[in-house]
Amino acid sequence: MTAGAEPSRTEATRHRLLEAATQAFAERGFHGTKTRDITNAAGTSSAALYVHHKSKEELLFLISKAGHETTLAMMQQGRQASDDPREQLRTVVKDFVADHARNHGRARIVNYEMAALDPEHFDEITSLRHRIDVELIDLIASGIKAKAFDIPDPRIAASAILSLGIDLARWFTDDFRLAPDELGEEYAELALRIVRARAD
Amino acid sequence: MTAGAEPSRTEATRHRLLEAATQAFAERGFHGTKTRDITNAAGTSSAALYVHHKSKEELLFLISKAGHETTLAMMQQGRQASDDPREQLRTVVKDFVADHARNHGRARIVNYEMAALDPEHFDEITSLRHRIDVELIDLIASGIKAKAFDIPDPRIAASAILSLGIDLARWFTDDFRLAPDELGEEYAELALRIVRARAD
Repeated sequence: MTAGAEPSRTEATRHRLLEAATQAFAERGFHGTKTRDITNAAGTSSAALYVHHKSKEELLFLISKAGHETTLAMMQQGRQASDDPREQLRTVVKDFVADHARNHGRARIVNYEMAALDPEHFDEITSLRHRIDVELIDLIASGIKAKAFDIPDPRIAASAILSLGIDLARWFTDDFRLAPDELGEEYAELALRIVRARAD
Repeated sequence: MTAGAEPSRTEATRHRLLEAATQAFAERGFHGTKTRDITNAAGTSSAALYVHHKSKEELLFLISKAGHETTLAMMQQGRQASDDPREQLRTVVKDFVADHARNHGRARIVNYEMAALDPEHFDEITSLRHRIDVELIDLIASGIKAKAFDIPDPRIAASAILSLGIDLARWFTDDFRLAPDELGEEYAELALRIVRARAD
């Protein structure tokens, strides 16, 4: 029984450390967070962090990787959800914006703490970001080809739409007058205007 | 002659310190910058900084204040430049985006280092930001009233348009495929789509 319980207890501790690190980095920034801030909040010893994770930077990398993978999966799923580029864009923007608003602390880390990553980790995250950009540019380019969207260059529109979601992390707070899903709906409509979606 | 020359030499030193601080904060962040980084780059002694400015935080405040005042003036001038809300919005967005792209280092400080300001300075900058928001919301609201723009709520559109300009500071580099003015023109067209500007 002990042999079976150990891995899940390990997982639980790893998870608690990641949650505590996410909150601490979001509040004080990566450089403003001490290892002890994380272990205190997670209720573990300082030594425990190094049993479960290599370093404070490793925690940042794992948070950033999970955040970017979530966004990439959203883009891919949104594209598969419909054959209509308008519906694809609506779903992708709605999910992306609502997720960034709901998890604005994590979004802040993911988007603004890139410079604190080790070079190898920085490259891995940059490559994930590139795949996210490409998914959105491809979605818009397909819509242009299908004459659902009426703009000449998908890249400008993609930059603008990504900026809407990313910048939320800077200003969104839990007491904002719109809930994350409501803001997602509003920004999805706005994204359809950005690409000049045709009525049908 | 000396009595006349002194103030201008003082001004020149103050200006050099501000320029050096802007570059250092943009590159390394406020917390990552040592006072000596600034004085070395400005070619002054460490003591000189305290003759001209109260502290490193005072430099941050002055940079932030000047940046926000520039943006506020752009909003006000853009509104006065035409009677047509479409032209007003076009001018405001073009100038705002081009300025943020051209001065992306300063824009990064202005938008992402708010938390490093002393409480009193933070309040002063927050009040300037509020006036900028109000100018843009008013501009869009006037356009809605004049039936030049066809959206129900000016605030969502204003948030989105401000995000476009602000997020530039995170990703724009001098080797970007569009020059600041070109990006300004593109984003101005995009802002007109966001507010559903009527053809005439």
